[in-house]
Amino acid sequence: MTDVLRDNPISPTVDFDRDGVQHGFLKLPYSRDDSAWGAVMIPVTVVKNGSGPTALLTGGNHGDEYEGPLALSKLAQRLRAEDVAGRVIIVPFMNTPAVQAGTRTSPIDKGNLNRSFPGKPDGTVTQKIADYFQRSLLPLADVVLDIHSGGKTLDFLPFAACHVLPDKAQDAACAAGMRAFAAPYCMRMLELDAVGMYDTAAEEQGKVFVTTELGGGGSSTAKSLAIAERGVRNLLIHFGLLQGEIEAGESVMLDMPDGDCFVASEDDGLLEMCRDLGARVEKGEVIARVHSARRTGEPATEYRAKRSGLLAARHFPGLVKGGDTLAVIAEVVG
Amino acid sequence: MTDVLRDNPISPTVDFDRDGVQHGFLKLPYSRDDSAWGAVMIPVTVVKNGSGPTALLTGGNHGDEYEGPLALSKLAQRLRAEDVAGRVIIVPFMNTPAVQAGTRTSPIDKGNLNRSFPGKPDGTVTQKIADYFQRSLLPLADVVLDIHSGGKTLDFLPFAACHVLPDKAQDAACAAGMRAFAAPYCMRMLELDAVGMYDTAAEEQGKVFVTTELGGGGSSTAKSLAIAERGVRNLLIHFGLLQGEIEAGESVMLDMPDGDCFVASEDDGLLEMCRDLGARVEKGEVIARVHSARRTGEPATEYRAKRSGLLAARHFPGLVKGGDTLAVIAEVVG
Amino acid sequence: MTDVLRDNPISPTVDFDRDGVQHGFLKLPYSRDDSAWGAVMIPVTVVKNGSGPTALLTGGNHGDEYEGPLALSKLAQRLRAEDVAGRVIIVPFMNTPAVQAGTRTSPIDKGNLNRSFPGKPDGTVTQKIADYFQRSLLPLADVVLDIHSGGKTLDFLPFAACHVLPDKAQDAACAAGMRAFAAPYCMRMLELDAVGMYDTAAEEQGKVFVTTELGGGGSSTAKSLAIAERGVRNLLIHFGLLQGEIEAGESVMLDMPDGDCFVASEDDGLLEMCRDLGARVEKGEVIARVHSARRTGEPATEYRAKRSGLLAARHFPGLVKGGDTLAVIAEVVG
Amino acid sequence: MTDVLRDNPISPTVDFDRDGVQHGFLKLPYSRDDSAWGAVMIPVTVVKNGSGPTALLTGGNHGDEYEGPLALSKLAQRLRAEDVAGRVIIVPFMNTPAVQAGTRTSPIDKGNLNRSFPGKPDGTVTQKIADYFQRSLLPLADVVLDIHSGGKTLDFLPFAACHVLPDKAQDAACAAGMRAFAAPYCMRMLELDAVGMYDTAAEEQGKVFVTTELGGGGSSTAKSLAIAERGVRNLLIHFGLLQGEIEAGESVMLDMPDGDCFVASEDDGLLEMCRDLGARVEKGEVIARVHSARRTGEPATEYRAKRSGLLAARHFPGLVKGGDTLAVIAEVVG
Amino acid sequence: MTDVLRDNPISPTVDFDRDGVQHGFLKLPYSRDDSAWGAVMIPVTVVKNGSGPTALLTGGNHGDEYEGPLALSKLAQRLRAEDVAGRVIIVPFMNTPAVQAGTRTSPIDKGNLNRSFPGKPDGTVTQKIADYFQRSLLPLADVVLDIHSGGKTLDFLPFAACHVLPDKAQDAACAAGMRAFAAPYCMRMLELDAVGMYDTAAEEQGKVFVTTELGGGGSSTAKSLAIAERGVRNLLIHFGLLQGEIEAGESVMLDMPDGDCFVASEDDGLLEMCRDLGARVEKGEVIARVHSARRTGEPATEYRAKRSGLLAARHFPGLVKGGDTLAVIAEVVG
Amino acid sequence: MTDVLRDNPISPTVDFDRDGVQHGFLKLPYSRDDSAWGAVMIPVTVVKNGSGPTALLTGGNHGDEYEGPLALSKLAQRLRAEDVAGRVIIVPFMNTPAVQAGTRTSPIDKGNLNRSFPGKPDGTVTQKIADYFQRSLLPLADVVLDIHSGGKTLDFLPFAACHVLPDKAQDAACAAGMRAFAAPYCMRMLELDAVGMYDTAAEEQGKVFVTTELGGGGSSTAKSLAIAERGVRNLLIHFGLLQGEIEAGESVMLDMPDGDCFVASEDDGLLEMCRDLGARVEKGEVIARVHSARRTGEPATEYRAKRSGLLAARHFPGLVKGGDTLAVIAEVVG
Repeated sequence: MTDVLRDNPISPTVDFDRDGVQHGFLKLPYSRDDSAWGAVMIPVTVVKNGSGPTALLTGGNHGDEYEGPLALSKLAQRLRAEDVAGRVIIVPFMNTPAVQAGTRTSPIDKGNLNRSFPGKPDGTVTQKIADYFQRSLLPLADVVLDIHSGGKTLDFLPFAACHVLPDKAQDAACAAGMRAFAAPYCMRMLELDAVGMYDTAAEEQGKVFVTTELGGGGSSTAKSLAIAERGVRNLLIHFGLLQGEIEAGESVMLDMPDGDCFVASEDDGLLEMCRDLGARVEKGEVIARVHSARRTGEPATEYRAKRSGLLAARHFPGLVKGGDTLAVIAEVVG
Repeated sequence: MTDVLRDNPISPTVDFDRDGVQHGFLKLPYSRDDSAWGAVMIPVTVVKNGSGPTALLTGGNHGDEYEGPLALSKLAQRLRAEDVAGRVIIVPFMNTPAVQAGTRTSPIDKGNLNRSFPGKPDGTVTQKIADYFQRSLLPLADVVLDIHSGGKTLDFLPFAACHVLPDKAQDAACAAGMRAFAAPYCMRMLELDAVGMYDTAAEEQGKVFVTTELGGGGSSTAKSLAIAERGVRNLLIHFGLLQGEIEAGESVMLDMPDGDCFVASEDDGLLEMCRDLGARVEKGEVIARVHSARRTGEPATEYRAKRSGLLAARHFPGLVKGGDTLAVIAEVVG
Repeated sequence: MTDVLRDNPISPTVDFDRDGVQHGFLKLPYSRDDSAWGAVMIPVTVVKNGSGPTALLTGGNHGDEYEGPLALSKLAQRLRAEDVAGRVIIVPFMNTPAVQAGTRTSPIDKGNLNRSFPGKPDGTVTQKIADYFQRSLLPLADVVLDIHSGGKTLDFLPFAACHVLPDKAQDAACAAGMRAFAAPYCMRMLELDAVGMYDTAAEEQGKVFVTTELGGGGSSTAKSLAIAERGVRNLLIHFGLLQGEIEAGESVMLDMPDGDCFVASEDDGLLEMCRDLGARVEKGEVIARVHSARRTGEPATEYRAKRSGLLAARHFPGLVKGGDTLAVIAEVVG
Repeated sequence: MTDVLRDNPISPTVDFDRDGVQHGFLKLPYSRDDSAWGAVMIPVTVVKNGSGPTALLTGGNHGDEYEGPLALSKLAQRLRAEDVAGRVIIVPFMNTPAVQAGTRTSPIDKGNLNRSFPGKPDGTVTQKIADYFQRSLLPLADVVLDIHSGGKTLDFLPFAACHVLPDKAQDAACAAGMRAFAAPYCMRMLELDAVGMYDTAAEEQGKVFVTTELGGGGSSTAKSLAIAERGVRNLLIHFGLLQGEIEAGESVMLDMPDGDCFVASEDDGLLEMCRDLGARVEKGEVIARVHSARRTGEPATEYRAKRSGLLAARHFPGLVKGGDTLAVIAEVVG
Repeated sequence: MTDVLRDNPISPTVDFDRDGVQHGFLKLPYSRDDSAWGAVMIPVTVVKNGSGPTALLTGGNHGDEYEGPLALSKLAQRLRAEDVAGRVIIVPFMNTPAVQAGTRTSPIDKGNLNRSFPGKPDGTVTQKIADYFQRSLLPLADVVLDIHSGGKTLDFLPFAACHVLPDKAQDAACAAGMRAFAAPYCMRMLELDAVGMYDTAAEEQGKVFVTTELGGGGSSTAKSLAIAERGVRNLLIHFGLLQGEIEAGESVMLDMPDGDCFVASEDDGLLEMCRDLGARVEKGEVIARVHSARRTGEPATEYRAKRSGLLAARHFPGLVKGGDTLAVIAEVVG
Repeated sequence: MTDVLRDNPISPTVDFDRDGVQHGFLKLPYSRDDSAWGAVMIPVTVVKNGSGPTALLTGGNHGDEYEGPLALSKLAQRLRAEDVAGRVIIVPFMNTPAVQAGTRTSPIDKGNLNRSFPGKPDGTVTQKIADYFQRSLLPLADVVLDIHSGGKTLDFLPFAACHVLPDKAQDAACAAGMRAFAAPYCMRMLELDAVGMYDTAAEEQGKVFVTTELGGGGSSTAKSLAIAERGVRNLLIHFGLLQGEIEAGESVMLDMPDGDCFVASEDDGLLEMCRDLGARVEKGEVIARVHSARRTGEPATEYRAKRSGLLAARHFPGLVKGGDTLAVIAEVVG
């Protein structure tokens, strides 16, 4: 073990410096019981035209969130080199094994990619992917967009987000990118524990970083996908990579100021949501109940809002366990 | 093997003939590796007051559908004997092992309860449950309501439904019950293959039978639960078991006349829905695409409507497999 | 399907008609993913000397009960042909796949062998084993001993048992065999639901049938094994197959007259037994509590004896589920 | 239950009566936890030209045998309607779920398709497939070829085979078909227990039926595939469906007259084959040893040939279990 | 990576500094496929009255040991603040996921909590629990009691224990605590490899540490629970936290001086114990045999005592594997 | 954590310094849910006679490769002390848990032993084994032979191999050992990424190291085993440990000069090899095709040789996944 990190074993089948459209793979050797000399193949598209800025667009950081993979797959199918001024690197299925399994984390090593940064070149498969983004892809980028949704177990109001950053110029650039995305809601986030996140990795390299939560439940709709596609196009126009006009919209500005935004279950059972996403709730109001699935006639446990605001997120599945976040109540600001 | 069926091994801990409110179990002995002398405990509530008709209300026929279990659990918690004229038997978690696992079918034997009728007293756990409904509970009932939703893999417009039946009086009583439920949509169904269904079992015993599909995705909302709760109350009032006034609403009448209503995938991949539930679609219109999760830059496969109508159901999860039903297009009638 | 049953596919590698000691297998072809032309090999020992009666001795009917497999393995290791007057057929691991896995039921098909009689020659692996005993081994026997214990999930006072039978001569012969076994306790059982049991199969063929419960918990002790070994030897002497003197002991006679003997849990949690095996308990006494494993400070649920008697059996594992039998209280008779 | 069988739920997306080349599916509805309205899609190709005879060609009856699926996939890709005089129905992946999983039996229900005939229209997925062949596809055919290999756990000398049949004309037609296939070896088989086999189903309907074993180990080679492709072409020419000349070869005629051909293991361990496929072995010769994988220094168990002949088949994997067939020794005849 | 450890992510819902009785949780955020924003909830009770010493009482360090969880759950249910002089912190289910699964190690990460100290705040779930005890709970304590039993795979004579420690004052305090517990047996232990143990973590922080082994087999009895409850009460009285009189008993003092105490199996098979727990055995005596579960008639392997003493522990399950410890023979000292 | 490594927990039951033949175990304590005080038992044989050099012979580094375990088991069974001049240490099942499971990696921790060096004494089971070889066994050896084959997923031409090493004397000694082995093929390898390999561990300790690839597919043949047995004997004679004459043979010298030797799949499907092992292929030639297992009539994807040479290795199973190495083409040198 020395101070010098080993090379990352991933080899791309595309040339990031070549002009034109290339569809290929990030090939990560993965020896295992069912293939001694196998590999994980992470699809990647590079569209380059001249010397403008580079946007790195990712979906599938969690494998059960669909607006990102769909919007970026569609972009990769139709983006022509001549439309672009600079370079667009598209990785629609960032944690490919998780995307192909439809799970938040990797079926190979249970790795949560968004808690695995900066990664390790000789670690697990998920850590190797993180390391490749950390040391090979992020350095190529000026602007980074990572599209999230709630996944199978959470559902969100659709919002674009950026973090409050100490560097004022970077902070302003990120906030402008977030607004350009033009989702129905916007969220400025002050991450209390940002260790291991892709967000942090990008921001610490000084990149303009925008992220989203665009729905959830392990599905997408025509409506939520349209928000994603419009947002991606707006962002590329905003940063000068595409020509055209930003298709703006009204965004409600939200804030999650402290831990009182979160309501968590202490019980296992059937979840009854008393209010739906987007509803205005008052402090002290019953927003959810948990009912026994083992007996009838037992009183349900009631869960109340600890503050007033909009119901911005909820536990999605019909069953809930002790410790699960039931709901998030956000404050409308600005 | 003789012509005489064995007794069903299930024993109830409630007395169906006693007045008052009783919460108990249908106890089904189940010997297994982790409990030699164990049992499956199916919660049941009986509320009886005098000699009026009997309603048998069930949810959790499939274990990942939540409007029924929630609406009926809440009813069981609050229904008082003095409110009732007759008897209400509530089984909110019909296939209890499936409900507790959050799966369509039973984790014990993979049994789909709604394809297991008339059941077998010496069969699998699921077949034993079916047999108990077939021979012990259905004979007690006058009116049967079975609340379904789409479950984890389908999403539906909320509708109440009944079948077209040869007996005109029974047919009319069922249709009246369906309308009394007052869901946003109603569906008269001509089941082509009704073998094994609880519906058929109830109808063949001459019962008034109403069923529903009230949403899906393996979750419920305040809105979808309200439809279920209102419907149950309306139904009990309609059949004279509760006093009060039916809370009516506008119902759109739907029909699924033939196999052209169904659009199925021939591919594995990421599902893009081009139209959302409730949208009006035209014959020939692209309503969904399936995108590769293995490569970028490949054209998506397009799936088109084979008839015009309302998008009444869709595949819910973001991943789709060859053979999956992508969408159902219903005709608006009347 | 005709009235003629197919041949059972099991072939023995021993000759049941040959004098001497033979160790071999009952070979049951079993084609599967990991061996297209494989077989289940059920060890069997035959010790024959002349033309006396035949005893069929079995253990491992359930795969997690150890007194039978050990006592019979030891017998098979040391029994010499010249010691025997007649024939002793020893199958110490009746449901061999279950014994090798240490589970009550077969890991191949989850079959509970003792609920699979009369079996099917073209059914599951477990049903094929049952059919072979039903049609090939039981017909060879005069006396049948099947040694059970509580297995991993139950613990019993050590007793030998026989059923109350309509044929008075058979009933008396069985009871005499039970007493000759000389376990610390004896139990006359009136089986309410005897369908599928090996016991019933043997009794219906007119055999003298003795069974036991000799402990449990998925283990054995020097003490419980000594009871089994002494009992087997006593039984063989009693029926004239071995020479020697029966090593008698004091047996307490027990009875389980009705369903009030059984106390079952309606809760999941940690099991506290308030009385131990063999203790005298009074009707109404708290004999067990179930504590929550999800919260502290919650009152435990108490379970009380529904009759007075000896605590004859208990749920063994520290965790309990709703529906599990917590305890059995037997009456001391005679 | 009546005498009238229900309709099979499989619907083909091809029209077996239409001239030309059609690629489609046999669609089998399959409701399950991860797709409530899903289906198993069994690929099928029909090539028809006028009114000649019908050949039904199948591979993937077991899902880990590759010569059939490859040879028939290639045939389906290139066969033109104008080349054919009659109709060729190609189902290269008969038990599609097993083929896609690479397993002998179906991952859905562990069904061994070749022991599931005549099947059941309301049975398991595998039984439904069997029923569809039994009642829908076999009746369309004049000639049936089912291509097998040893799969992952057996390896065979490459041979074509047919059964000894009571109808002399049918027997002669089958034998002629087998010889036309021109594999390096030929085998006339007298099946002792043919219950449940596709072979028997076809033969009982009076069809000309030819089968093969063309290698094994869960793989194929350029050489073994060439045998399969040549054989299929020869067969179609022989029965007048294709024009051209049969590419004949020398075939050694084999026989497996009785149970002494089989050598089975009684031990678990590491398999040492002392002779390879095709070797001439003498009665009494050590042909295999089983070594302990738990200790060193223990003598291996030796297994000897019970007759002289050619080593025609062997257990393939390096690990062996008690009951596994180690080797088959065939007699060279004629 | 810096020298400063990150904060532990666990947050308690109780206030350790508040007087009175509080029942709550140690909440450990745990994002996973089935709950993106979920948590592990570790129940905790704090009973505080004024400024006396703090006792930290734990059970469920291994999840299949029941005397600790039961005795401490019962204590938490009934302990009143006014009974206490100081503070009692009760964590009856230390490795809660393991306790709820009934397994020695955590089902989440297979972590053996008692080999995970000092833990890691950004490690696995089990390492996070260890770190929280190491850095947050142990520093609060003066006296630490950790109640163990043998679990599902071992059975012990009931003993309290403490380690031989270099600090004489600490050593004496621990030994006094051990004796005050008043279990039937006592054991002074010289741990050869104490790396990763909770014991070591507590001792290195200078705490008075007492541990136990109180039975095993994955169950408990009224008798073994009584030993635990009496011991806990005695200990709290001994350290001045409770008032009352110590209920003393006779304790036999044991020692395990070296590796000759352990007898291990080199074989797989059925375990026959020739002597039971508590028996006096002589060096060279056969104490156990391992019998084949694959054949009959094979001689069993015999295992002999390597020293004289009491049989203090045994392998519990009826099946044994090569490498398993069969028995421990302790010397009676003092 | 200090600079001093902890002791390895493995204890051998043999004495490496004693003359004579000893069969025993490397005993590695392994506490787990199904055995709290269990161990992994790695069989080892030591044959020593006087003070000559030490050869360390290993197989089963990967658990699905059979020539090594068989050839070395047979050697351990028959090698007499008097035949040896020096010491032969034989570990035929290096990663014993993997060998007993028949898998490349350990079923316990998924560890690939040949990527786990130098190992960790407090790591996973596989890392502990690596550490024991690194720090205890390799230092005892002068000559190290590690016998590999392709395993279940690769098949190789049979070759012995050694690495190109910077120390010329060591390099020459290894090459001489490789040639003495006298396999049909020889390969000088320039490992680009040798991190974690046993090879590197041995070479860095200055040992003479020879390795092999002798077939594959998860099986062995009489022919491939004969190559292994002859090679082991030759090697021991060559290094003076056995007397006798080297049984030489013709070896073809191969080279894999760069990444163009490897052909990898980008598709999932059925693998058609167009050329077999040992065939001469030309650059640009189609050597493999991948066919769809989901549809018929689709064109297969073709894979072409990127250089001319011998087909030296291939993917073995009939199914292939994107990323799998399809084939390796080696250059014939010398």
